[in-house]
Amino acid sequence: MDQMLLMLPGPTNVSNRVLQAISKNVVNHRSAIFGKILTETSQLMSKVFKTNNKSYLLTGSGTAAMEASIANILNPNDKILNVVSGKFGERLRDITNAFGGKSVELNVEWGNIVKPESIKETLENDEDIKAVTVVHNETSTGVANPIKEIGDVMKNYDALYVVDTVSSLGGDYVDVDGYGIDICFAGSQKCLAAPPGMAAITVSDDGWKVIDKVDSNTYYLNLKKYRDSSAGTPPETPYTPSVTLVYGLCEALKIIDEEGLDARIKKHKIAAKACREAVKALDLTLFPKEEVSSSTVTAINMPDGVSDSELRGTIRNEYKVELAGGQDHLKGNIFRIGHMGNITYKELAITFSALEMTLKRLNFDIDWGAGVAEVNREFI
Amino acid sequence: MDQMLLMLPGPTNVSNRVLQAISKNVVNHRSAIFGKILTETSQLMSKVFKTNNKSYLLTGSGTAAMEASIANILNPNDKILNVVSGKFGERLRDITNAFGGKSVELNVEWGNIVKPESIKETLENDEDIKAVTVVHNETSTGVANPIKEIGDVMKNYDALYVVDTVSSLGGDYVDVDGYGIDICFAGSQKCLAAPPGMAAITVSDDGWKVIDKVDSNTYYLNLKKYRDSSAGTPPETPYTPSVTLVYGLCEALKIIDEEGLDARIKKHKIAAKACREAVKALDLTLFPKEEVSSSTVTAINMPDGVSDSELRGTIRNEYKVELAGGQDHLKGNIFRIGHMGNITYKELAITFSALEMTLKRLNFDIDWGAGVAEVNREFI
Repeated sequence: MDQMLLMLPGPTNVSNRVLQAISKNVVNHRSAIFGKILTETSQLMSKVFKTNNKSYLLTGSGTAAMEASIANILNPNDKILNVVSGKFGERLRDITNAFGGKSVELNVEWGNIVKPESIKETLENDEDIKAVTVVHNETSTGVANPIKEIGDVMKNYDALYVVDTVSSLGGDYVDVDGYGIDICFAGSQKCLAAPPGMAAITVSDDGWKVIDKVDSNTYYLNLKKYRDSSAGTPPETPYTPSVTLVYGLCEALKIIDEEGLDARIKKHKIAAKACREAVKALDLTLFPKEEVSSSTVTAINMPDGVSDSELRGTIRNEYKVELAGGQDHLKGNIFRIGHMGNITYKELAITFSALEMTLKRLNFDIDWGAGVAEVNREFI
Repeated sequence: MDQMLLMLPGPTNVSNRVLQAISKNVVNHRSAIFGKILTETSQLMSKVFKTNNKSYLLTGSGTAAMEASIANILNPNDKILNVVSGKFGERLRDITNAFGGKSVELNVEWGNIVKPESIKETLENDEDIKAVTVVHNETSTGVANPIKEIGDVMKNYDALYVVDTVSSLGGDYVDVDGYGIDICFAGSQKCLAAPPGMAAITVSDDGWKVIDKVDSNTYYLNLKKYRDSSAGTPPETPYTPSVTLVYGLCEALKIIDEEGLDARIKKHKIAAKACREAVKALDLTLFPKEEVSSSTVTAINMPDGVSDSELRGTIRNEYKVELAGGQDHLKGNIFRIGHMGNITYKELAITFSALEMTLKRLNFDIDWGAGVAEVNREFI
């Protein structure tokens, strides 16, 4: 274990089974055998999304899926309500503007959730809003937005419901059909625990009705092309996919299927609770309120008198644990522990051992073992 | 990390670098290219043994090397003094007898070390003793015999000094030339942290003088054949070696070389101390006295009221940590934690988290975090 332990909000630690899968021989991506793998992966994705709709695999990062979710539904000057409660909310806003849309911003202070009533209010006041984008799990702030409750609101409006579950799918409750989500997408390298480089997206019938009326100004991420190619014999992607990463994602999804999605989500909830309790036991404070905090990443206020590079540098260089810093205006003010994917007590026992040693080195007066004690309490 | 963590006295956890090395293409074992790898591996082995003598690679487990160390020096009825302070001392005795030798047993109560004076006394009283065998690190009892001090005694006698460092080489101080050891051997899967299946042996000039006068009744492990083959162009082994495991051992030895042998041994000493302190903090007791305890494995008395299968079964099945049980008459009475090879605070943080949860489940009244606290204290 004398190697770096990734405790980031993605990429996460990849299991040996997945590493072995991506080492398999590359096959022709236009062959029947690859078509079978593609279909299986797509079906397993839909199972995790909890949707009867088809899922499509994009060769790109989560941001490619973000772009696909906007660019395919947007005619010039269409209005999109972008909930902005962190960095990834901002990114969906920026994509909306980049593709000629008109972003209606619903700003939420970083560290808070969006209130479903605020979305309702905005929709009531503006009938032209074509879609609402919500980031489920804001890794930048460690907060999970209430996508189920927002779904209840959305059911009364025609606007499409677009949800970014890049860093929550497989680690928190997502029910695409149950919540009435029209477009949903996820990244391979987060809770799904495959290597980075792939994204998946699924679209409802209502979503397709909108997409079919749009003359997309995107080519690589044109979802109509994905739909057409996947309906061929054999099923294909429109452009060359990352064949070995499809193997990896397929294997990662099989692992989730064997584990059971509910069991996996519960495991993430336990890990998140353990992480928060351990943080408090070390006299550190959480950035967001506990009741809105994420199941997959915990944001922690940087303790007084220590810099980001001292804290994260020490834990990285001395103890080989990689934590995430804050982004944008939170840079230096918070640090973040990702606990997603194949998370067990083992990663958290290491992380809090490392954090205890780091804090002691930085002259903080903490009780030895106090952090790990909380991890063990939650995981017993 | 949702896989078994091996905390055994071997096999130990193999690093990715070594796993990648053993995945390389098999080459002709009679080729110049393999001869180069063999030579490099042998030289790195001699560096770890701290000897100017050549080291030979045997395709077999540590027991093959044990057999080679005896069978090559033994004519019928030759007397060998076998120090028996645990299971592996017994094994050297049994091999001595199996090859027609006369074993003179020097029995030491399990859990204790042999006193160098006892060896001196026995040698004084019996001039016919041809060799003395000592197991440096008795994994069965968690005890390290004083091979340096025994070496000081041996310098005054003609008898060969045969030392089993199967589970100590790379994890405790071994100095073949400095201690005057004539025959020394080690296994690949212990402190060297390569996969199991290989052993290495080195022989002094005095050792060869004896071997050359013996008409070995062994074929596969006949060291004269190894010496001859290794002196050829290209250097070879007499019989087909496990080519991929040689790659692995070579890579593992490079890792040790980069790390520095002294640093690696110190790391083992810290790990052993951390393990003992953590054991005591959980109100468990050590089997051997602390001052004679091993740097690579800790033997712990089974706490009252719990069976081996309850304790080791729970930690294995619930927490995916594999500990070792007791052997022979210690079966059920002790359990053992191996901390050898690529050991860091990470493995011990996991092990003691797991042990704490296991003991709590078995209704022991321990303080949460008490074990890991000691690990962190030692490793900071």
